[in-house]
Amino acid sequence: MNNTQRIAVIGAGPSGIAALRAFESAEQAGAEVPDIVAFEKQSDWGGQWNFTWRTGMDTTGEPVHSSMYRNLWSNGPKEVLEFAEYTFDEHFGRPISSYPPREVLWDYIDGRMRGSEAKSKVRFNTVVRWVQHRPETDDFVVSSEDLLTGQTRSERFSHVVVATGHFSFPNVPAFEGIETFPGQVMHAHDFRGAEALAGKRVLLVGSSYSAEDIGSQIYKMGAEQVTISYRSAKLGYDWPEGIEEVPLLNRVDGSTVHFADGQCRDVDMIILCTGYHHHYPFMPGELSLSGPNTVYPEGLYRGVVWHENPKVHYLGAQDQWLTYNMFDAQAWYSRDLILGRAELPSADERAAHMADWKARFEAIPGEIEEARFQCDYVEDLIEQTDYPMFDLDAVFEILASWKKAKKAGIMTYRDHSYRSVMTGTMAAQHHTPWLEELDDSLFRYLMDPEVVAAERADAGQGSGLMR
Amino acid sequence: MNNTQRIAVIGAGPSGIAALRAFESAEQAGAEVPDIVAFEKQSDWGGQWNFTWRTGMDTTGEPVHSSMYRNLWSNGPKEVLEFAEYTFDEHFGRPISSYPPREVLWDYIDGRMRGSEAKSKVRFNTVVRWVQHRPETDDFVVSSEDLLTGQTRSERFSHVVVATGHFSFPNVPAFEGIETFPGQVMHAHDFRGAEALAGKRVLLVGSSYSAEDIGSQIYKMGAEQVTISYRSAKLGYDWPEGIEEVPLLNRVDGSTVHFADGQCRDVDMIILCTGYHHHYPFMPGELSLSGPNTVYPEGLYRGVVWHENPKVHYLGAQDQWLTYNMFDAQAWYSRDLILGRAELPSADERAAHMADWKARFEAIPGEIEEARFQCDYVEDLIEQTDYPMFDLDAVFEILASWKKAKKAGIMTYRDHSYRSVMTGTMAAQHHTPWLEELDDSLFRYLMDPEVVAAERADAGQGSGLMR
Repeated sequence: MNNTQRIAVIGAGPSGIAALRAFESAEQAGAEVPDIVAFEKQSDWGGQWNFTWRTGMDTTGEPVHSSMYRNLWSNGPKEVLEFAEYTFDEHFGRPISSYPPREVLWDYIDGRMRGSEAKSKVRFNTVVRWVQHRPETDDFVVSSEDLLTGQTRSERFSHVVVATGHFSFPNVPAFEGIETFPGQVMHAHDFRGAEALAGKRVLLVGSSYSAEDIGSQIYKMGAEQVTISYRSAKLGYDWPEGIEEVPLLNRVDGSTVHFADGQCRDVDMIILCTGYHHHYPFMPGELSLSGPNTVYPEGLYRGVVWHENPKVHYLGAQDQWLTYNMFDAQAWYSRDLILGRAELPSADERAAHMADWKARFEAIPGEIEEARFQCDYVEDLIEQTDYPMFDLDAVFEILASWKKAKKAGIMTYRDHSYRSVMTGTMAAQHHTPWLEELDDSLFRYLMDPEVVAAERADAGQGSGLMR
Repeated sequence: MNNTQRIAVIGAGPSGIAALRAFESAEQAGAEVPDIVAFEKQSDWGGQWNFTWRTGMDTTGEPVHSSMYRNLWSNGPKEVLEFAEYTFDEHFGRPISSYPPREVLWDYIDGRMRGSEAKSKVRFNTVVRWVQHRPETDDFVVSSEDLLTGQTRSERFSHVVVATGHFSFPNVPAFEGIETFPGQVMHAHDFRGAEALAGKRVLLVGSSYSAEDIGSQIYKMGAEQVTISYRSAKLGYDWPEGIEEVPLLNRVDGSTVHFADGQCRDVDMIILCTGYHHHYPFMPGELSLSGPNTVYPEGLYRGVVWHENPKVHYLGAQDQWLTYNMFDAQAWYSRDLILGRAELPSADERAAHMADWKARFEAIPGEIEEARFQCDYVEDLIEQTDYPMFDLDAVFEILASWKKAKKAGIMTYRDHSYRSVMTGTMAAQHHTPWLEELDDSLFRYLMDPEVVAAERADAGQGSGLMR
């Protein structure tokens, strides 16, 4: 029997990178760490933040991972996702605004690891096909395919850390008559940008972050009419003219969409903002997380350890208020369990712990208390590890303030600034209001505000004239 | 060691159904046949012919299999694909036209199996995750997932018949600047219908069947401009005004697409008709077919038997001139090898046989000789089995005539009729010319021509006025 520890990390997005960073951090502090292999089917790391124009299948026949689109700007303040050990100030060398666009966030995630050896532990263009647990040796055979050569390898690992995320496999419900719709039907997963929707009438089905953000994007890019269809509750923002909320889509009849309250609209396109599935096609059913997108998924002790087989860990499997720093906290805890620095409680103790937290989760009365729950969860995790503790009450306050700012102005909340919990630095005011900024590049974002102002003056127009 | 024969058929499209039918046919003739399980990830059989409005991922998180679109009509005469043991006459009870639409062809494939027990051997909504060959027992462990319950099963099989097809995983090349295109970019795999493209300017990249047929569809549905960009050779049809062929796409700059000859166009949408990959994510690399789409793929003895492991068979892996009856011939041969009715030659003999045919394949001077090659190939296969032999010279003549008819009129060739090789029946003249028929339903297709004529007269218009 082979007792050597060998860790398979599946996926090298923010969570998988956190796993690599956690072990690296221990190693830099003098610890001996096991061999780690991270498997990443894309050609670079960053997961969702690794934008591609592609939809459907990738060059290699694998499903495209990222649901990212042009002009996606963070929909929460960066101050709630900041790494405790690598701040925005450290990365950018000066304060930036609270709501950076996608390329800026990718740069930040990537920036933490520049100069690190961790990237050499990632096998890019390599997809995990199948994970088999061997009860007799209590280890795993991980079969993976090099997508460039087509070669398959089956290797032994002592632990499997699943970090593939759960916003890649769309939930696509059917609606009566949808097959008669002559325009395009797509899921938000395949949305890549709203430029071509100028002048169009668009139906968005769903009332969560995807509908809210894609609706705002489409409006910003000049759509004629944005109709958001909700199932149980309106988003309820004070929408500008041109965006409306209606009850659930009942049926489709050609170009006409009918809603539960009897209203109908003619539309040019339907985007299903209907969420995502937990989907781990490489994991046998008994090791696969499933169920709804929630802050406390069933079956995971401390949100990380697969209760039925504690050598399987999941990172980032929660619905997320906090993101990058939560993945860090989870990765540090996962690492400490593997290194034996944290003790894995008995199955009974784990079950009791999960039952406690589940009861607390189920008693959550509203949305903002869910944010509180997740802050407490992250605090509890960090306490088990040497990850730098930070003020989670302050993070919660930012979340509460963010919710209010959105309520006050769904098209302006991204112009607000917050103070970093990590450094105390106040975020910069961005050089251009979000609603007027049509260029989401890192280059444009980092332009000197004075240069932007001068350009604007040269163009002989106030910023308000851009729309 | 378990010597019991047990056959896994992966995929229940036309090829997988042919495998089931082959064994059923032997059983009906009194033979004892082994246990067969067919795995089908969709909820019904028919493969490509099982149309869905969905694109990207299926309800279960699996890639959508079918590349089918509304208003797809057969692009070759049905007389070249007819089953030798179940004719169109037998199915429809009267002569139908030579170019039926998708729903009619699905009905025909399905019709052969109505009243058969074969469907009970298919595990629907079940995807094969991983096939592992065990050298010590020379058999296979097939791990599959019930997509409805999430449960995984790993089972022993003596043979694996891969019948998942190779027109499901798109080849999507990149083009300089394509990420700046503000409109939609899709692969032909995700094309579902052209109705919404009326009045639009569409670029099709590629010059094979997808570009030819989607271009014709888009034209039929009223597109303003269809531009087909070819790499090596024009399709070269006598296109109507509104369709043009230009050299390869060089780069994209916003809405403007630039071609190798310096021309450019402004377009609203880009459809990549750039073909498909062989992709068998459930097969280890050493059992996986790869390479280009060709009538003689490398590594398959008699186009069926995986040379390196002859207990693995592939059906329908060829580029196709003939389709359904070729799958039958392959399935019958595969069956006879498994039943021991046909003798598997030694590895050396197989290699020599493949080298012979490969040399012949490589000497093919042109397209029509490729059709001849495939006719000869099918004849050779049928000779090994008890599948009803049919006149493959006559099939070749139909193919040659079809090519000429297309050349003479790309918008009218589907109005031609051919004589069945199986029954001698002349195909009917369809009640409506293809270019004028916007309804591709089985119901409409089978309408009494007199009723259609009367309706037309009632509407006070000649058929020529419909466009």
